[in-house]
Amino acid sequence: MDLTKVTHIDNVRLSDDEKKVRIIDQTLLPNKTEYLELEKLEDLYEAILKLRVRGAPAIGIFAGYAMYVLSLQSKSESFDDFYKEFTKNKEYLDSSRPTAVNLGTMLKRMDRCVLANKDKSRKDLLNALKEEAKAIHKEDMEMCYKISEYGLSLVQDGFGILTHCNAGPLATSRYGTGLGTIMLGTERGMKFHAFVDETRPLLQGARLTSYELEMAGVDTTLICDNMASIVMKQGKVQACFVGCDRVAANGDVANKIGTSGVAILAKHYGIPFYVFCPSSTIDFDCPSGDNIEIELRDPEEIKEMFYTEPKALPQTKCYNPAFDVTDNELVTAIITEKGICRAPYNESLAKLFK
Amino acid sequence: MDLTKVTHIDNVRLSDDEKKVRIIDQTLLPNKTEYLELEKLEDLYEAILKLRVRGAPAIGIFAGYAMYVLSLQSKSESFDDFYKEFTKNKEYLDSSRPTAVNLGTMLKRMDRCVLANKDKSRKDLLNALKEEAKAIHKEDMEMCYKISEYGLSLVQDGFGILTHCNAGPLATSRYGTGLGTIMLGTERGMKFHAFVDETRPLLQGARLTSYELEMAGVDTTLICDNMASIVMKQGKVQACFVGCDRVAANGDVANKIGTSGVAILAKHYGIPFYVFCPSSTIDFDCPSGDNIEIELRDPEEIKEMFYTEPKALPQTKCYNPAFDVTDNELVTAIITEKGICRAPYNESLAKLFK
Repeated sequence: MDLTKVTHIDNVRLSDDEKKVRIIDQTLLPNKTEYLELEKLEDLYEAILKLRVRGAPAIGIFAGYAMYVLSLQSKSESFDDFYKEFTKNKEYLDSSRPTAVNLGTMLKRMDRCVLANKDKSRKDLLNALKEEAKAIHKEDMEMCYKISEYGLSLVQDGFGILTHCNAGPLATSRYGTGLGTIMLGTERGMKFHAFVDETRPLLQGARLTSYELEMAGVDTTLICDNMASIVMKQGKVQACFVGCDRVAANGDVANKIGTSGVAILAKHYGIPFYVFCPSSTIDFDCPSGDNIEIELRDPEEIKEMFYTEPKALPQTKCYNPAFDVTDNELVTAIITEKGICRAPYNESLAKLFK
Repeated sequence: MDLTKVTHIDNVRLSDDEKKVRIIDQTLLPNKTEYLELEKLEDLYEAILKLRVRGAPAIGIFAGYAMYVLSLQSKSESFDDFYKEFTKNKEYLDSSRPTAVNLGTMLKRMDRCVLANKDKSRKDLLNALKEEAKAIHKEDMEMCYKISEYGLSLVQDGFGILTHCNAGPLATSRYGTGLGTIMLGTERGMKFHAFVDETRPLLQGARLTSYELEMAGVDTTLICDNMASIVMKQGKVQACFVGCDRVAANGDVANKIGTSGVAILAKHYGIPFYVFCPSSTIDFDCPSGDNIEIELRDPEEIKEMFYTEPKALPQTKCYNPAFDVTDNELVTAIITEKGICRAPYNESLAKLFK
């Protein structure tokens, strides 16, 4: 199966002439589905900065293609001049979102590729960069595919599945992580009913997840975050699926704010709670969730963003943590590209990856 | 203590010349604090219809004053003509929000007052109506005061208190029900820290509750509904306070959507969950929460309301229940104006009220 030939949502790839990076402009979703073809350094930088491309894996894939497209434009004759230019471009792109780990990681990988091919002809060097960028993309697709395949062993046709935030094709590639099982199962003719939390304050559930699921033809219902309890109580939900930002060695899970609340509700109602996790997010240097620092964001996101006018007084304080930590005891299983881990996670995660 | 002389937020009363109904325009909150003085039938009707005055008890109080103000304007000489006019006004106001139970109840009470005083002079009849309207207001204030006083026996100085939706002075009178304990305690020099859920989709927490608490000088933090879990986990919350729309004979509680989720989180973290409940909301004809029908509202409230542009595709389905039911086993205590009830609620509620 050639995974590069099929995509539900074509979020990042080379343009047809392979001279530009083609992305879906995520800032316009869900109201407009517009694609951009970018080749200028400033435009590539701006696309990351303004979240036109977002989601850690998607940004990593974008970075690979961006470095190839920029390299293609080089007029430098010597390798040294070429590499000076490459480095300058790389450092500039890296500064667009300093906290995006995959951005730096994949820029470094493209850098290693340049150095490994420094003695080759320019044509062969450029070809090596193109193949490296495509490899980054393909590896992510394969990883999502494997996670989704393992996920399918946990569900049955007709399941109601509740998901929080966005861990779908837009943030990754092809199937996504948290949504991958729904996407792959749907492709194989299974019928699921997805309940999508809108995920305040940035509304990723409404703007991105419900869009992806509609595009993939999944029966989808959007709910507010505070409606998760009632749909679970009504027996409409047979499993909860979430992605993750970081998993500690003991299986504690840092993910989008609200995830721990969903997990507690799921436990109360006896519903399994599954975390879909590329192995790159498991941090064995982090013994437990207590060691994960929580990023605090701007109160404006709660009081003003998206609205025609402010929704609270200027002096009203807001607490706006980007993530929360779900205790491992609330996690039914962690699904990785190498298999499914269950408690005790210290042992099961180490066994697969250490 | 003359409760009519002190109000944190003057949501409904007679104007200083006692010829108009003075309300705070709740549709402009929190950005503008504007008072309206209404005397024309159309304006009074529109104020209820457009939610300028809202909250079941507040609408009931408004209805009493409105009928007095309209009666004052009558030019009818005979009682029969006066009563015909009164009835027409009453029926018109009653049609502004057919589901608002207190509106009908208090209009009927004003009607009984007219009939009980039909043989009196017009001056005495009008005076009786004014006193009846003020009595409705005063009784609500006293009820809120008693509930709040009982609530104070459950908290300590320095408590962090999480509240959901709006059960404060704007919706009732003076202290409110769910917020009353915080208001009364603050007035007596106690220091609380209030965590206010924003309560999607209508944002009552942000727009109304955080406004009321700021006005009363309470240390207040606004959070999104999905942040309740993290603030509880961090040990910032010592009690949860909510109002209620209807309480079944077995203590199951129907209240604003999301309430049951807060109750489950509170149980998980070992935090008491208190329901503040005027006895008028206890329905002994309703054996359990299973008998309470859940009102479903417009998907537009989730996808479009308050926003500069839609947040999901036009074809995306939404599930938008106005309320949920919190099982009695999750309720630590129900606080009424006659005392505090604890499980088993079938017995404790019946003992106080049946």
